[in-house]
Amino acid sequence: MADDLRIALSHGNGGRYMRELIEQVFERHLANPEMDTHADAVPLTLEGGTPYFTTDGFTVQPLEFPGGSIGSLAVHGTVNDLAVAGATPRYLSLSALIEEGLPLAQLDRIVADLAAAARSSEVRVVAGDTKVVPRGQGGGLYLISAGVGVKPPGLTLGMAQVQLGDAILVSGPIGDHGITVMLAREQFGLKGDLQSDNASVLPLTRALLDLPGLRFMRDPTRGGLTGVAHELARATGMAARLWENQVPVRDPVRSVCEMLGYDAYSLACEGRVVAVLSPEAADVALSRWWQLPSGAGAARVGVMEPGAGVVLETDLGGERFLEELEDDPLPRIC
Amino acid sequence: MADDLRIALSHGNGGRYMRELIEQVFERHLANPEMDTHADAVPLTLEGGTPYFTTDGFTVQPLEFPGGSIGSLAVHGTVNDLAVAGATPRYLSLSALIEEGLPLAQLDRIVADLAAAARSSEVRVVAGDTKVVPRGQGGGLYLISAGVGVKPPGLTLGMAQVQLGDAILVSGPIGDHGITVMLAREQFGLKGDLQSDNASVLPLTRALLDLPGLRFMRDPTRGGLTGVAHELARATGMAARLWENQVPVRDPVRSVCEMLGYDAYSLACEGRVVAVLSPEAADVALSRWWQLPSGAGAARVGVMEPGAGVVLETDLGGERFLEELEDDPLPRIC
Repeated sequence: MADDLRIALSHGNGGRYMRELIEQVFERHLANPEMDTHADAVPLTLEGGTPYFTTDGFTVQPLEFPGGSIGSLAVHGTVNDLAVAGATPRYLSLSALIEEGLPLAQLDRIVADLAAAARSSEVRVVAGDTKVVPRGQGGGLYLISAGVGVKPPGLTLGMAQVQLGDAILVSGPIGDHGITVMLAREQFGLKGDLQSDNASVLPLTRALLDLPGLRFMRDPTRGGLTGVAHELARATGMAARLWENQVPVRDPVRSVCEMLGYDAYSLACEGRVVAVLSPEAADVALSRWWQLPSGAGAARVGVMEPGAGVVLETDLGGERFLEELEDDPLPRIC
Repeated sequence: MADDLRIALSHGNGGRYMRELIEQVFERHLANPEMDTHADAVPLTLEGGTPYFTTDGFTVQPLEFPGGSIGSLAVHGTVNDLAVAGATPRYLSLSALIEEGLPLAQLDRIVADLAAAARSSEVRVVAGDTKVVPRGQGGGLYLISAGVGVKPPGLTLGMAQVQLGDAILVSGPIGDHGITVMLAREQFGLKGDLQSDNASVLPLTRALLDLPGLRFMRDPTRGGLTGVAHELARATGMAARLWENQVPVRDPVRSVCEMLGYDAYSLACEGRVVAVLSPEAADVALSRWWQLPSGAGAARVGVMEPGAGVVLETDLGGERFLEELEDDPLPRIC
């Protein structure tokens, strides 16, 4: 694809240019037996349990960053929402809002990255829509995916299942995605070897589904670990206690956070799981996660206890409340 | 809601402001027993046929116009994609990309309009996502919906069913939505009493589902009647002949098109159906549509015949090819 080709408003007008864009970029990368770009709606096969449904929008800047792009993010974000609900993702829809002027070659790379993520997550993109917005009314590209999956019978997960004394696990170091995206913006003049953790969490969630002590899972995206802990505390009427010296944070993430005054616990991850389990199930869960490539850095980071809010027990043995994000300075990273 | 409140970036950060926005605007208008704004994914009940899935993105300017808003459009667009596929819409997801600075009162009106459209279309919004993009990177508000419906067994619709001699019907006057939105922009200095046709087409599609001669239905949105006719011609290897004096176009739509040089046949409708049926079934279909409030202006506008492309038979008895849209000047209206 020639480097100088760019998206024009006529790529969104419902005529020939739009048809060719859909055929040459979206259909070329995403084609599968169930995709029909000429149909208004497509049939789904959903045997084996209860259908689950979710959606997520993606507005990350820059569109490409070490470890992925808005394309793979749009797959993993929705796949992960189904996975942490205990469902197996099956189908995705994809809606693209493309800004006039976006280089076609960049769109092509992003859709290729999206297609690779869909293949490795074993989901099919079966429905789609493209719109072109005028220059100055988009961020280059926004992607929105919706997903349908199937949850096996007999599995009950949710914050309502959480009990006093339950353990809080995370599947790996937190904040990698947030800091990677911030560094990729180059506005801070910092460089690093960090990669986004952008990935499907399905291997991590699948590994725990048969544990009777599994209560609740969530992927800590916007709001990060702090956000999940606050939701848990609010929904359960308990306190979530986190142990600072147990929460895995990579050194470069820690350094950048210290330099820029960010809180790693509030940074988005895009390939991690926070899980709450009974203490016994937590031991089994950790040992299973450690055997997975994406779970090697898993850790038990906290406990549900009587009280309210999110309590951080610091390295020095003190403790303080971790506040919910309010009018914060964190750049948008998902 | 105070008039001076506006969306801030912190409404998208995953913290307290975002939670309150979701509760006070989206949840307040859209609440239903199956919506759970604290869940990653929600269960669906899909008995009675084959599940169908679709998605659509909405970027209309202005956000509100006579006859609706981007909110009702986001419901009807996706509902109609399911309806013309022969499915009964059941569930919607909603993803909102909100631009920093959007007045909260306007967002509230739009979500109220969306909720009313969902109620009258008998669908439930059960999954959602909100993102806030910086000022200058959005068009005020973009909405993306995905929908899941159920198609009864034994119903086969599609362009592959179309046969030579089949009749082409439209359910009402074309171009109302397109011209209404253009006039609402006020950039042309024109005023009119037109209203968008923005509506659920479910009553229209349901009325035909039991007709054995029903081959194919589509809602002529982007690309309009011309776009649907071109898709039909390409997919079937036949010509689609349209009779100019049979295609219903309101006088004000005709006048504005003449003044501005637009082609009414390429303008988007958001509440019309193009249906292809056997000649006998077409008579029954028309008589059924005429009994419905939204089908009072229905007409038989053309026929599938040997040949290729889209042929317009003019009022004067001549004929010409209607070209597919290429690099056209039509403003974006959906």
